[in-house]
Amino acid sequence: MIKNQNPQQTKQLALACVAHMMENDAASKALGIKVIEVDAGEVIAIMTITAVMLNGHLSCHGGNIFSLADSAFAFACNSENFAAVAAGCSIDYLMPAFKGDVLTAKASQLHQGKRCGIYHVTVSNQDNQVVALFKGNSARIKRSVLPE
Amino acid sequence: MIKNQNPQQTKQLALACVAHMMENDAASKALGIKVIEVDAGEVIAIMTITAVMLNGHLSCHGGNIFSLADSAFAFACNSENFAAVAAGCSIDYLMPAFKGDVLTAKASQLHQGKRCGIYHVTVSNQDNQVVALFKGNSARIKRSVLPE
Amino acid sequence: MIKNQNPQQTKQLALACVAHMMENDAASKALGIKVIEVDAGEVIAIMTITAVMLNGHLSCHGGNIFSLADSAFAFACNSENFAAVAAGCSIDYLMPAFKGDVLTAKASQLHQGKRCGIYHVTVSNQDNQVVALFKGNSARIKRSVLPE
Amino acid sequence: MIKNQNPQQTKQLALACVAHMMENDAASKALGIKVIEVDAGEVIAIMTITAVMLNGHLSCHGGNIFSLADSAFAFACNSENFAAVAAGCSIDYLMPAFKGDVLTAKASQLHQGKRCGIYHVTVSNQDNQVVALFKGNSARIKRSVLPE
Repeated sequence: MIKNQNPQQTKQLALACVAHMMENDAASKALGIKVIEVDAGEVIAIMTITAVMLNGHLSCHGGNIFSLADSAFAFACNSENFAAVAAGCSIDYLMPAFKGDVLTAKASQLHQGKRCGIYHVTVSNQDNQVVALFKGNSARIKRSVLPE
Repeated sequence: MIKNQNPQQTKQLALACVAHMMENDAASKALGIKVIEVDAGEVIAIMTITAVMLNGHLSCHGGNIFSLADSAFAFACNSENFAAVAAGCSIDYLMPAFKGDVLTAKASQLHQGKRCGIYHVTVSNQDNQVVALFKGNSARIKRSVLPE
Repeated sequence: MIKNQNPQQTKQLALACVAHMMENDAASKALGIKVIEVDAGEVIAIMTITAVMLNGHLSCHGGNIFSLADSAFAFACNSENFAAVAAGCSIDYLMPAFKGDVLTAKASQLHQGKRCGIYHVTVSNQDNQVVALFKGNSARIKRSVLPE
Repeated sequence: MIKNQNPQQTKQLALACVAHMMENDAASKALGIKVIEVDAGEVIAIMTITAVMLNGHLSCHGGNIFSLADSAFAFACNSENFAAVAAGCSIDYLMPAFKGDVLTAKASQLHQGKRCGIYHVTVSNQDNQVVALFKGNSARIKRSVLPE
């Protein structure tokens, strides 16, 4: 496992890692999450809110907004081919989301040490209104993402 | 909307609020979440991890563990017939969960002011191992849960 | 209390609010915290770590790093002349700080609604290494910062 | 470094660890923090709010409430003679504290793995009102607290 220095190679590696993870990620697929942009430590993913995502207040269940942010975070913190898991996350909800809304989650690396990483995710709707702000703390688990 | 003082009435009110919310909560139903115990500010809910909840590491997607905790929190913070929404949540993952695991989320009220509440949720598996610890901050929105 | 639209007036108002708060802020003064830049929702403050700030591991007590970030956050969320208090905060420590280090806290407004605000603070040392990342949630309390 | 099984030995070890840390903890001493109860993973500490702890709103600076909680957490997560540092913390403020208030911080171990720990701290005033709820995440650093 060699750390690529070349930006193009870094991006290719990130694309390969995310594609590999997405392939096996039944949960993200079930939510209709699509990754639309990938770079080292950076991922943009989208999800459309469907009827099955609504809660008792008839707005989107917080868990589904969280899941979109969490998937973007997971892809971002695994994009350098060091397998990582979530240690903890927090989310602030700024406004509700409704059926038919298309949410975009932009994940960025704020910090990545040898083991621990911190990633921020902004979730916005189709009108560019921020729906939620998410922070994920990741921990690398000493294997690669891609099969060796 | 009268605040019940009698413990039995309080419990009946909590049961009615949770039943009403669950009825419209497509998201919790889709995840197979079942509420098994309810009292004012206290809810226990369970969920079995299915194949569709697994992520790219083949363990349960953090978003699904979060969703179970978040549902238990939502029911607990709406159980006194004051409608409330989540303002923010945080979760710490202590160990992974796998296909077939039956997770139990116990939500408890730590604080409930006039507007803001704080609830803790412990998520355990069938072997009583703690899988995740969750905190939810709620905000009441000036209407009742049950139709007047 | 009129909301200024002009950027220069906005900055003047922010300076006046922070100066007024700092005047009465015995805690920030006792820690030697100095505000070096102010704008609406944005504050930069510095603090030098002294012997009295060290903990049992002989690095800076987390509470002192937190206090610097918290002061920068407090000034930022009060800089538009709507008095606000902290509802909750979180901090991630990335590396220790030691005696003699000069820490810089940069607070930025991520979100400010009618009542609730979210501010991020990055705390760095004199070598531009990030020591801590802080998030503050504020709540406005229906009075102005400056005496009317 | 032998892990004591006997509850009395465990408590003696905890007392020795906390006494050793406190001895070098200039920051806790400067705040007048006193540890009044210690057991493995459990610590109670108190602090009286003085004039120098007040902020621009003339209530206790959040950083000082945090520092009390953080000290109790630090003592608790180091009480088993495995040196640990704070990885991150969060705090919710429920009500303000004022000059002369005597705050009590009760820290409890919620989880302690081989490396990572989670501790909760409740900060109350002299009237048993909860002022703040604190969570600390700790990381053990592969040395003992007591000199070998």
